[in-house]
Amino acid sequence: MIDVKDICKRAKQASYELAATSAEKKNAMLAAIASALTEDANLARLAEANAADVEAARRNGREEPFIDRLTLNDKRIATMIEGLKQVQSLPDPVGEIVESRVLPNGLDLKRVRVPLGVIGIIYEARPNVTVDAAALCLKSGNSVVLRGGKDAINSNRVLYNIMRDAIASAGGNGDVVGFIDDPSREASKVMLEQEAYVDVIIPRGGEGLKHFVLDNAAMPVIASAGGNCHTYVERTADLEKAVPVIVNAKVQRPSTCNALEHVIVDRAIAREFLPALYSALKAEGVAVLGTEEVREILPEVELATEQDFYTEFSGYKITFMLVDGVEEAVAFINSHSTNHSDAILSRDKDAVKYFTDRVDSAAVYVNASTRFTDGFEFGLGAEMGISTQKLHARGPIALKELTSVKYVIVGDGQTRK
Amino acid sequence: MIDVKDICKRAKQASYELAATSAEKKNAMLAAIASALTEDANLARLAEANAADVEAARRNGREEPFIDRLTLNDKRIATMIEGLKQVQSLPDPVGEIVESRVLPNGLDLKRVRVPLGVIGIIYEARPNVTVDAAALCLKSGNSVVLRGGKDAINSNRVLYNIMRDAIASAGGNGDVVGFIDDPSREASKVMLEQEAYVDVIIPRGGEGLKHFVLDNAAMPVIASAGGNCHTYVERTADLEKAVPVIVNAKVQRPSTCNALEHVIVDRAIAREFLPALYSALKAEGVAVLGTEEVREILPEVELATEQDFYTEFSGYKITFMLVDGVEEAVAFINSHSTNHSDAILSRDKDAVKYFTDRVDSAAVYVNASTRFTDGFEFGLGAEMGISTQKLHARGPIALKELTSVKYVIVGDGQTRK
Repeated sequence: MIDVKDICKRAKQASYELAATSAEKKNAMLAAIASALTEDANLARLAEANAADVEAARRNGREEPFIDRLTLNDKRIATMIEGLKQVQSLPDPVGEIVESRVLPNGLDLKRVRVPLGVIGIIYEARPNVTVDAAALCLKSGNSVVLRGGKDAINSNRVLYNIMRDAIASAGGNGDVVGFIDDPSREASKVMLEQEAYVDVIIPRGGEGLKHFVLDNAAMPVIASAGGNCHTYVERTADLEKAVPVIVNAKVQRPSTCNALEHVIVDRAIAREFLPALYSALKAEGVAVLGTEEVREILPEVELATEQDFYTEFSGYKITFMLVDGVEEAVAFINSHSTNHSDAILSRDKDAVKYFTDRVDSAAVYVNASTRFTDGFEFGLGAEMGISTQKLHARGPIALKELTSVKYVIVGDGQTRK
Repeated sequence: MIDVKDICKRAKQASYELAATSAEKKNAMLAAIASALTEDANLARLAEANAADVEAARRNGREEPFIDRLTLNDKRIATMIEGLKQVQSLPDPVGEIVESRVLPNGLDLKRVRVPLGVIGIIYEARPNVTVDAAALCLKSGNSVVLRGGKDAINSNRVLYNIMRDAIASAGGNGDVVGFIDDPSREASKVMLEQEAYVDVIIPRGGEGLKHFVLDNAAMPVIASAGGNCHTYVERTADLEKAVPVIVNAKVQRPSTCNALEHVIVDRAIAREFLPALYSALKAEGVAVLGTEEVREILPEVELATEQDFYTEFSGYKITFMLVDGVEEAVAFINSHSTNHSDAILSRDKDAVKYFTDRVDSAAVYVNASTRFTDGFEFGLGAEMGISTQKLHARGPIALKELTSVKYVIVGDGQTRK
């Protein structure tokens, strides 16, 4: 087995220097990687490695959508290069003075933004994550240890070697990127024990991977979560605007975590509003489930089970239910939501305030589609996922969320009384 | 066994309303608790309960310092009341707009400071923590679930009942404070499984408790850590000021986590500086350990073992070692420190920058005693401990560190393209 501990240790040692590296030099490393991804020799070995991965995946009976995600064509490589350039253009979060004041005893106290140190990333098939994740880590001054999925091992190995050489050619220490060239569970477990060297782990993949990481990691984990998102149509809502907002939240990209799953409607407007909403959703091919009460208004709707209200459908399916007012809606959302993105559509200031004060979700919307919860849309640039945790990072995990702070206190011989 | 899950669930339900409660009303609850702690009837039942705890502790052969910490006398109760008043006077962190901008599509995006929800606290003997911790949680808009140590169970129960009644008398919901009236490990374990209701756990006690919590908690943990603190005397340091700074850092209160344990001195100034430092420390009763090289200059110093350099002595003991310059000092600190508080004494700007950029600790000092790492000293008011984690809270855990943020996005029917 490869020496996972040694890879993590060298990434840690290199991280101290990287933490003190200027934005210019970090951008030069990113530019060198982008440039290396245009060189013929590199593209040839990448094509060869990727072909081997794709062939193995076919042999292993993987389905077409999987093979599509695994395949690195010209367009995907161009997108990787585009991503590297975008990360270059983002402001460097490191060194930001978050807080500054002089204490009564003359100590000059500053809270300074610093990298986390070493970020471990465990991800599944898509090989572009190898480059995207490394770019975000480098820009935020962090060493990264990459552990990709078995199916992409040949592609990932070549991408890693290209990045390592490019970083060295730009005057950096190649150890700032580590690569676990062993996709076994055992190697992952060893990586998850290196809390002395790896400061944070970010799993990128399905719920199975997330729970494996949460169960085995000795260091803190920043996990992206699913989204069981709600939109509540309050009685004063602009019903004409409500229909396209709900349709957009459901169908603009139903597989995403910020897509809408459940609509809650005030009883007072249900008879007027539900038929219009139902036909707009039906026209988009969305299957609607509802409570008995909803079925009295829309008899063609299928009866929803209790479990349906806890389900993230991630497809062309949605539930309808009715409440009497904002209090009931908020109580329902707080007891059913995964606390990702939830919305109210309303023109009543008090109802809006009650909702935004009390709904305990990472993103709370008023009169807008839940689909906006995203690093790009929020103006944060690229992201590593959406956190629904409350500690450290909540919402899109962008460059700033890959940093910590430290206190730097400058004195002139002060002693404590 | 008591219904731990139900206590946590009720605290969660009450937390939504508390999150939207004004500073005035939260301060009224704190004032009501302070006032209740001056009432004769309450003081009488508290005295009776505390006497029972103290008697049981004596019967169980507890030592005097333990019994002292357990005892609630008039002075300790006055200090609790003082603490409640201080927390009242601190600004309310909830509702602070951390970030605000209008996106190109017209969405008004705000990042708003919000409570964490429910904070679970597991602590050891001192009953004053029952009130101090509850006060910090309430002020930051969080429900709290308290689980104190076995030895203080009678005192804690009475304090809890006083708080609960006082909160109700101020118009609050008594469920915002929960109390696990069962000091068994089994009850703690059940509490640590309630991640649906308890958002964060804070252990307050020794390393044993901390590891028990880290090993068993299903929810995130904010843990205070020990401090294996260093001071590096660079060759350009003002040596006259260096002696009192080091003596203060070691002896002002040696049992604390920000007390100094290890002194690193540039070889260039060792012969001049070490004898003066040694006699000043000796005069304060501090035992000095050192490397062979240090013993060539100070033959009376005991030889330090490799393990000594990893040790937080928490008493009148210190080590000396020598290096050639700031690079070696930083490498030593980063490989031996617990990343709590580390200092450089120097007048060389480049050395200072090298040190503050690269030392990976929560508080990095220049020309000052490490003893200042503390919520009060930093001007943050009361604290729950000092975090050496990098995620969420680093340094003193004060009111702001007991909060999260959420995005509130207000639109006018925006949909995603």
